[in-house]
Parts: sequence; C-alpha cells; structure tokens
Amino acid sequence: MRLSSRIEGIAYSPIRKLSPLADKAKAAGLKVYHLNIGQPDIRTPECGLESLGHIGRKVLEYSPSDGFLSLRKRLSEYYAGYGMSYSPDEIIVTTGASEALMFLFMTCLDFGDEILVTEPTYANYLAFAAAAGVKVVPVHSDIEGGFALPSPEDFESRITGRTKAILICNPNNPSGSLYDENALRSLEEIVRRHGLYLFSDEVYREFVYDGAEFTSAGHLGSIAANTVIVDSFSKRFSECGIRVGCIATRNRDVLGGVMKLCQARLSPPLLGQIVAEASFDAGKEYIREVISEYETRRNVLVSGLESIPGVVVAKPQGAFYVMAELPVDDAERFCAWCLSDFSYEGETVMMAPGAGFYVTPGMGSRQVRMAYVLAEEELRRAVTILSKALETYR
Amino acid sequence: MRLSSRIEGIAYSPIRKLSPLADKAKAAGLKVYHLNIGQPDIRTPECGLESLGHIGRKVLEYSPSDGFLSLRKRLSEYYAGYGMSYSPDEIIVTTGASEALMFLFMTCLDFGDEILVTEPTYANYLAFAAAAGVKVVPVHSDIEGGFALPSPEDFESRITGRTKAILICNPNNPSGSLYDENALRSLEEIVRRHGLYLFSDEVYREFVYDGAEFTSAGHLGSIAANTVIVDSFSKRFSECGIRVGCIATRNRDVLGGVMKLCQARLSPPLLGQIVAEASFDAGKEYIREVISEYETRRNVLVSGLESIPGVVVAKPQGAFYVMAELPVDDAERFCAWCLSDFSYEGETVMMAPGAGFYVTPGMGSRQVRMAYVLAEEELRRAVTILSKALETYR
Repeated sequence: MRLSSRIEGIAYSPIRKLSPLADKAKAAGLKVYHLNIGQPDIRTPECGLESLGHIGRKVLEYSPSDGFLSLRKRLSEYYAGYGMSYSPDEIIVTTGASEALMFLFMTCLDFGDEILVTEPTYANYLAFAAAAGVKVVPVHSDIEGGFALPSPEDFESRITGRTKAILICNPNNPSGSLYDENALRSLEEIVRRHGLYLFSDEVYREFVYDGAEFTSAGHLGSIAANTVIVDSFSKRFSECGIRVGCIATRNRDVLGGVMKLCQARLSPPLLGQIVAEASFDAGKEYIREVISEYETRRNVLVSGLESIPGVVVAKPQGAFYVMAELPVDDAERFCAWCLSDFSYEGETVMMAPGAGFYVTPGMGSRQVRMAYVLAEEELRRAVTILSKALETYR
Repeated sequence: MRLSSRIEGIAYSPIRKLSPLADKAKAAGLKVYHLNIGQPDIRTPECGLESLGHIGRKVLEYSPSDGFLSLRKRLSEYYAGYGMSYSPDEIIVTTGASEALMFLFMTCLDFGDEILVTEPTYANYLAFAAAAGVKVVPVHSDIEGGFALPSPEDFESRITGRTKAILICNPNNPSGSLYDENALRSLEEIVRRHGLYLFSDEVYREFVYDGAEFTSAGHLGSIAANTVIVDSFSKRFSECGIRVGCIATRNRDVLGGVMKLCQARLSPPLLGQIVAEASFDAGKEYIREVISEYETRRNVLVSGLESIPGVVVAKPQGAFYVMAELPVDDAERFCAWCLSDFSYEGETVMMAPGAGFYVTPGMGSRQVRMAYVLAEEELRRAVTILSKALETYR
C-alpha cells in the first residue's frame, strides 16, 4: 500500500521541522518569541464571545449547506460598505477560506489545469492545488520591487492552453503588499482577454495601513462573472478557530458547482456561524482599534529590522506579515540554529523560512516571514534578539 | 469559462429537485413529514450545550491541526470501550466525517484509482470521490438479501490493477444493515490478500438494535495497518452542526499524509471540539435512551410499512434508515407527486428517492430511503399518509 503521488507531492511545512526544536528550546527553559505564525493575540469581539452564552437551541443541528441566510445577509451588507455588490444568494458560507479555496479549485479546474499564483505565496495554496490535481504556475514578485503585483507581461508570458485561473491574495500573505487600483485594472484586462477565472483571497481586507484605500477584485466590473472573492472571519475578528469563511461571486455556474460540494459536506460549522454573525455587531470601532494596533506593530518591527545591518525589508502596506532578507546563506538553517544553538539572555526567536513560500526551487532561501501578531514590547525584544543572533551567527 | 468536468460529473442530490415542491406544498398550507433527511430530533446532551457557557477564552484561536489532545484522549478511551485500540496519536480530528473521507481519498488514492463501495451507498461518497478524481466501483447488495454485505466473490470480481481501497459503512446508511463478525472476517481476507486499504465509516456505531453486538473494522487484527476508521460525533450525540469527526488508524503513513492536508486547512472547529469533548460526559445512560428511542421508532416504521400491500422492506438492524421498495414504477416521480399532487387531511410525506443511492444506472428506481428521525406518533401518521398516497397513485 502506498500513499497517492499527489500527497507525496505536498511538502511538509518548513515549520514542521522547526517545531520540535522550539519544543526542545522551551523544555530547556528558553523563552521563544513566535514570529512564525499568523495566530493573532487580539481579543475576539465581546459580542461574538457572548453569543455562545445564549444560543437558545436544544439540538445542535445541521445548518443550511450554503450557510444561514441571516449571516449571508450581514455579509452582503458588509460588502456593500466596501462597494462590492453581492446579494445573499451570491454568497456561500464555507468552513474557513481553506475550504473555499479547495472547493473553488475543484469546481473550476480539472486535473492538470494550471493556475497562476504570485510568488512568494501562501504556502497552503500549494497543498490545496496538489490535492485537487491542479498545477500551480508561479509569477514572480521580488523584494527589491516591494513585492508589487507582477506586470501584465509577466502574467501573460505564463499563460498556456491549460491556464484556467489566476489567484491573488490582497493584501498579501506572506509579503504584506497591497495591490492598488492600477494594479488590479491591469489584471482585469488579462483576465478578460484570456477568459480566465480570477480568485481573490481578501481575508486581510481590513488590514491596510498609512491611510491607503483597499481595492477589491469585486470592483472590476468588466470581469464580474470571472471573479470569485474568497473570504474569512478568522483575521478580521481574531476568531481563527470558528472556521467560517465564504465565497462571493456573480457567476451562477460557479455557485452551483461549489454548492454540489457544499451539499456533499452537509454544512459549515453551526456555532462558528453564530459567533461570526454576532461579531459584526462589534462595529467599526473594534476594527479601527485593531488596525491601529497592527499599524503600530508594523512600524516597530519594520524600523527595528531596517536598523539591523544587512537586513533587507519591503515595508508592508497590509496584512500582518513582513518578508525580510537576512544576511545569511540559508535562512532555514539559520532559523533552526536560532532554536537549537542560540539564546540571548534566556530568549530566542522562531521565524518561518522563506523558501516554503516559493514554488520556484532556490527562491527565497535567504528570506524569512515574520508575523507581527505580538504586542509592541515583545516585538521590540524579538528584534533585539534577532539582531544578536545575526551578529553571533556570522 | 467552463466548470471542471469532475464537478459536472457530480449529480445534484435528488432531494434538490424535491425541495422546491416541498416548499410549495408548505406554502399552500400542507404539513410535510420529512422522512428524507438524517437530521435527528433527539436533544444534544445537556453537558455538551452547557460547555458553551464557560469556554473561558478571550481569543477563539486555531486549535492544533490534528485536534485537541484532550479530545483525542477521550476518543482513545471511548474506542477502548469498543475493543478498538487507538492511541491519541493514532487519531486525527477532522471537520466531520465528510472531511475525513475527502482527505482519505486524496491521501490514499490517485486520479483514476478505484474504490469498491457497497451499493446502495451514501450518496455523498460519490461526490467526494468525483471531487478527488477517484472512480467508484459499486458492489451490489439487494433488498431481497436484506442488504447483507456482498460475498467475497462479489468483491473480488471487481478488483482490478487500479483498485486501492474498499469503503464500507457499518451500520449502513442508507440500508440500515449491520455487518456482523463473519461478514467482516470475509472482508479481512480480501483486503489482506490484495493489499488494499479498508475505510470503515462507523458513524452509526451506537445505533444497533435487537441486542446485536457491533463489530468494528478496528477488530480485524491482521489488517490493522490497512484499516482506517472514519467517525463523527454528529449522530452519536445529535450534534450534526458542530462538524467534528475523526479518523483512527495504526498506519503511520496515512496519518502523515492526512496531516499534510490537515495542516493546510489549519484546524478543525474549535467550538465543536469543546462541545464534543464535553458530550462524552453524558455517559452510557444518554446513549441507551437514544438507542431505545430509535429502536421503538424502527419497529413502528417497519411494521407500518410491512402492513402496506406491495411494499417490500428489509428490516434494518442499525443506523436510523430504512430502504423500502414501493409498488410504483418510478419512485422519484412518486415522491414528487406526493409533494405536488397529493395530500391526505392536509398532510403529505417527503422521502428520498432510492436511485440517488445507487451507482449503477436503473438500480433502486422503485425504492425510497426513509429516516426514522421523527417521534413515534409522527411516524405512525406518516405511514398512514404514505399508504393513502400509494392507494391514490395506482
């Protein structure tokens, strides 16, 4: 008995190798600053938490396969606030953005079809694509160019007869870059000309800094039928554990296809939907405070990194990640070394090696991704430790 | 832009055609008895519901990708009570049995590989297989034979060079049949000889009647490495909405492969896991009462059906479904007619047409599946209405 070749083709997360080292470091009494994961420390809105105290049900029954209508109505209103027009029946609630992506790949792409993805990329896209038998074709963005959206020519040069879709993440995980209206308009042109799907993962929509405005793929009128928005409550309301996301699209065929899979898996999480709907009551004040907190953290982390000799960083305009290039030969080895052979005053740092975010072999080998999901003081301290680690390592 | 051929290949649930008719009937003031769905009316254990009132968290964060260790420990103990030996690290918590099945198919089977499934079958298996690019090969069981597990020769005659796995559901949805130790031993022999995976969906494990004993695929010692148990809390504790299930296996490779997908989708539902773990505290008393309730309902429904001239029914020994053959040409048409053109004293019934549970075209066209998830009195009434409907229809 063998495993399938598709599963063999999925790389273990680079974190998987580091986790035992981190456990060992902790067991040895070290404090480890976790810059490696996207689990926010921000509090879930009180109204979301409280909703669990009065669910008023005696049976925790299946919810509708496309999610509660009341939740889809709230989502529809929320989108309207962003100038995105999706009626409740153009929205399907999913078990996080993860399920949304998996179902979209299966619905729109056949085995062997190709999807263009900007690189560096959210590593889990690669796993979903492999599981669905879809080939990921990377379109490169680089740290020198601030990880800007690749040029229309770059996208176009990768399109083949099997290309069916383009997937973007905006604001971007892992680079933190924000694609503005101009960038999206250039993409619109390509998508329309080649009759592709455009999947836009916008789970970090709120997290945009320096007063920048967010442009959604949902604003691209001429390709409304091509476009599918992928969304999640996880980051917006710091409730990653509820596993509630959605897709939104005007494309009736895609909605129908995704619904077949949604009906097969019966329903999205009931309790998570209750929390998600209640969380909307937190209002703009909650979101404003969270954004302000992340913006401060970004400033602290980026200016800290910029002050370390040899470190290159593209200042992120969104999400809560930064990709940094370190003055080391092999960032993966360095990340492991930080956990296994280094400490400064009883503390060390854990970062995600950059190579795991690239499809092209050899790319990103000197980079790391850091998530600024720690409080300001902890971030300052983590930068100091990283700086000491780099000094010692050389 | 077209949808993928795999999604085109997934049939819409037969219920999908009937639902608008049911809505119409209700809008016209009719009462509709829903025998078509497996949503139990039984109360979720109080301890499960109460756990939501004191979750003691300020952030609803990701849980571990393989689920909380505390939950996996409870599952391990629970399995021990059934003579099934799985340590906590041989268990992975999934988003319902649905995700477990999808991930297993992807982990163990490649595009074009074949899986043997007894027919009639749980219709959603077909959707998961199509999504994963896996070919379902039906092995037929029939109503005359009480939907017993097909013979070893029947299984063997369908094995080809691409056959990788056998999937059974025990107790069975939709037939309600229970596979005893002898049946499972004969399967063990085939699985071992051909080096196949055996996936055993045992989500109805508790629901076994007439004092019969449940034999798990986990008892088959010689194929422990081939066997994967698929499980769910949905039916056991009447909490379908929490979306918590699991796989259990001794096969380290399968655990590793499934974990790649589990890490990609980040985590199973946090809140559902809390409820699931707390529900175990309901103890054997809760389960005993639920079984007794279902056994009574089964007796009411089956004896009612047996009293209708021309109806053939295989008395189920487990789960909470019965497949019945009706004295009609086309059960799907009859089910639609019950909703659109018939009523008896302002009431009618909704049933699931049998053909949707068969892979082989033409099979089951005179059958329906009924779920006895209604209270005793409602079931009696539903049988009366069905009897009147059949009288009128002829």
